[in-house]
Amino acid sequence: MKLSQLFTKTLREAPTDEEAINAKLLVRSGFVFKNSAGIYSFLPLGWRVLNKIADIIREEMNAIGGQELFMPALVEKKYMEPTGRWDLDVGYYVNEKRKAQNEKQEQFVLGWSHEEVLTTIATKFISSYKDLPFSAYQIQTKFRHEARAKSGLLRGREFMMKDLYSFHVSEEDLSQYYEKVAKAYHKIFERCGLKSIYTLAGGGVFTDKFTHEFQILSDIGEDTVYICDKCEYAENEEIAKIKNGDRCPNCNGKIEEKKSIEVGNIFNQGTKYSEALDLQFTGENGHKKPVVMGAYGIGLGRVMGTVVEVHHDDRGIIWPENIAPFKVHLIVLDGHNKEADKVYDDLIKNGVEVLYDDREDRTPGEKFADADLIGCPIRLVVSKKTLEKDGVEIKKRNSKELNIAKIADIKKQL
Amino acid sequence: MKLSQLFTKTLREAPTDEEAINAKLLVRSGFVFKNSAGIYSFLPLGWRVLNKIADIIREEMNAIGGQELFMPALVEKKYMEPTGRWDLDVGYYVNEKRKAQNEKQEQFVLGWSHEEVLTTIATKFISSYKDLPFSAYQIQTKFRHEARAKSGLLRGREFMMKDLYSFHVSEEDLSQYYEKVAKAYHKIFERCGLKSIYTLAGGGVFTDKFTHEFQILSDIGEDTVYICDKCEYAENEEIAKIKNGDRCPNCNGKIEEKKSIEVGNIFNQGTKYSEALDLQFTGENGHKKPVVMGAYGIGLGRVMGTVVEVHHDDRGIIWPENIAPFKVHLIVLDGHNKEADKVYDDLIKNGVEVLYDDREDRTPGEKFADADLIGCPIRLVVSKKTLEKDGVEIKKRNSKELNIAKIADIKKQL
Repeated sequence: MKLSQLFTKTLREAPTDEEAINAKLLVRSGFVFKNSAGIYSFLPLGWRVLNKIADIIREEMNAIGGQELFMPALVEKKYMEPTGRWDLDVGYYVNEKRKAQNEKQEQFVLGWSHEEVLTTIATKFISSYKDLPFSAYQIQTKFRHEARAKSGLLRGREFMMKDLYSFHVSEEDLSQYYEKVAKAYHKIFERCGLKSIYTLAGGGVFTDKFTHEFQILSDIGEDTVYICDKCEYAENEEIAKIKNGDRCPNCNGKIEEKKSIEVGNIFNQGTKYSEALDLQFTGENGHKKPVVMGAYGIGLGRVMGTVVEVHHDDRGIIWPENIAPFKVHLIVLDGHNKEADKVYDDLIKNGVEVLYDDREDRTPGEKFADADLIGCPIRLVVSKKTLEKDGVEIKKRNSKELNIAKIADIKKQL
Repeated sequence: MKLSQLFTKTLREAPTDEEAINAKLLVRSGFVFKNSAGIYSFLPLGWRVLNKIADIIREEMNAIGGQELFMPALVEKKYMEPTGRWDLDVGYYVNEKRKAQNEKQEQFVLGWSHEEVLTTIATKFISSYKDLPFSAYQIQTKFRHEARAKSGLLRGREFMMKDLYSFHVSEEDLSQYYEKVAKAYHKIFERCGLKSIYTLAGGGVFTDKFTHEFQILSDIGEDTVYICDKCEYAENEEIAKIKNGDRCPNCNGKIEEKKSIEVGNIFNQGTKYSEALDLQFTGENGHKKPVVMGAYGIGLGRVMGTVVEVHHDDRGIIWPENIAPFKVHLIVLDGHNKEADKVYDDLIKNGVEVLYDDREDRTPGEKFADADLIGCPIRLVVSKKTLEKDGVEIKKRNSKELNIAKIADIKKQL
């Protein structure tokens, strides 16, 4: 992609209506646009990052047998009433007709979680133990009424989520799958450049049982966790029996209080939804039983925002390579566009993703500042100085080291 | 994908609450689930088809310089008021707070078109003629209040749409791009297996100017077009000056009245949105002018539904290869799963998409009926009879011809 073609631009100043670092940097660099509090557009650079996160999630969900589907945002009252979640004040309500709205006439809630919809769909297809287990997921926009939407991408009123649901004949079978998902989740966050802490927590509006959260340590986090400095056993303060300075119940290490961001969660939902919505199966012995369910969420925008909180410096974002919008940020100086065009074309032909700053109306200082702000992992510079050595300057975003590589050797060096 | 793993199943009977052929077939074959009138879930098979349509659209939009982004569904009042479209009764309105809703307190409309949002975003980045032209698109869920949602995927209250918007310094520049998009649209529909008719039409709630629609001839269509039997010049009846039996104004051919489905449309919007939302640019002469805009839509679910309307027989769907959920439907009979597993693994290794009916509790008749209903382009059968010839039976969905290919030669035959 040539920067001269990209319709977004970096902004000189951080936005004044944002408090969180992730929002300030993502708005300034042109990755996102704030439409309303907690509601963002993903501009071309930001959309590339979000899709890379989505693809990593897809790969890991498919690897554990998840079947991708897509459910609607308009969820009719009939789905949510049997579980009692219609009346929770989590979502936005919608009327078919505009005028004279009142609670009695509300027909839809904008989907904030899809247990009821998928459980209802499953009743059409699942009748025997032979149909189980299975798991299905979607990557889809969710809507939640949020009073405090001040953390940029960390807490949205509209946000993209991956929600996986699994269906089993027994608690034992669910437990095995739960462990598989936990492993897949750690892998996903690691591939996105985040170290996740497996944390015991409460179930909120999803289940009465204990659940697990995947927490990323960060001072901007709204959660407080108590975590062992040795084995990393952790509990969310909501349910914690351990506190700061305690000894770890597992390994006798020291418990510390930390702020953290919840980027994922996994729930044992038991038979809460299957009983309410009559999802039963006939067992090997011919008896009917309710299906045992699990649910597993990841907020994609929240992952993106968390990565920015964790990986940045005072000049801008430092994207982990797997989710960077482009691997290479190529800068041309001194009007040597012909030579830089050739480097660009060669890299593209070799399948390298390149953002090419070919703009002729910017100073070198502006170009370097934009490269640091946008945060691609590798910066290449083609200039009079580098061409005298028949080369290109290479610098990693997270290092100060500068090297000159021969033009013929660039591919190897990447 | 093994059918024994897929959580959906084909249904024996067509659903009784659907009138349209596309809905009957897509529900029966397990591609979609009807959640509410005009609101469908895309189940794993249907989601594969929708993504193939999305990928074709992406390729053609990127080829004409479209930059992909993603805008929110919750569109705040402040965006829609300046153009007067806040008060059109097209969308669903949403309140931040649940209780005591009335028109004055409505804060959001669920996005039914995004001219206002993107134009507002553009004001942050566009100031000079040097910033133009550009075009940006998204593939995203749209919401429209629809009284008559009875045509399956052809008319939804919630549906996935590709909306492209282009921004220009002049009407002339817009016209050139408009032609480019028209060509890209014909290509998209052709790649999806549809022959599209370029039809002059009115602008509805989008523009006061003439526009063009891409119509697919089909008796289930809600539109009426007058079309020349020779040069295919066509007008929508809404604005038509020609009628059945007339002579074509272009080529003197004969005008015929036909029913058709609108799968795409392109609009010259002039400066309607840029004037209302103050999107101006400074020209080469230093004077400020409003940006000239175009908008271009394709309904993805509607394309999918239309394909089913056009390509089916009394046994089921006949998917065009480019958007089929899988290229090959492999059936094993007589318990020869070991041999069929090998064929399946070989094809997968060679990058062929295969739906494999490995189920042991189905009769040959049920398996053949499911293959015809689901409609993958090529059916392979591994049975006692074919293995005696060291081969696999090959049949195309749209042909009656049966052939035996040697197992070693299958790849070549595909």
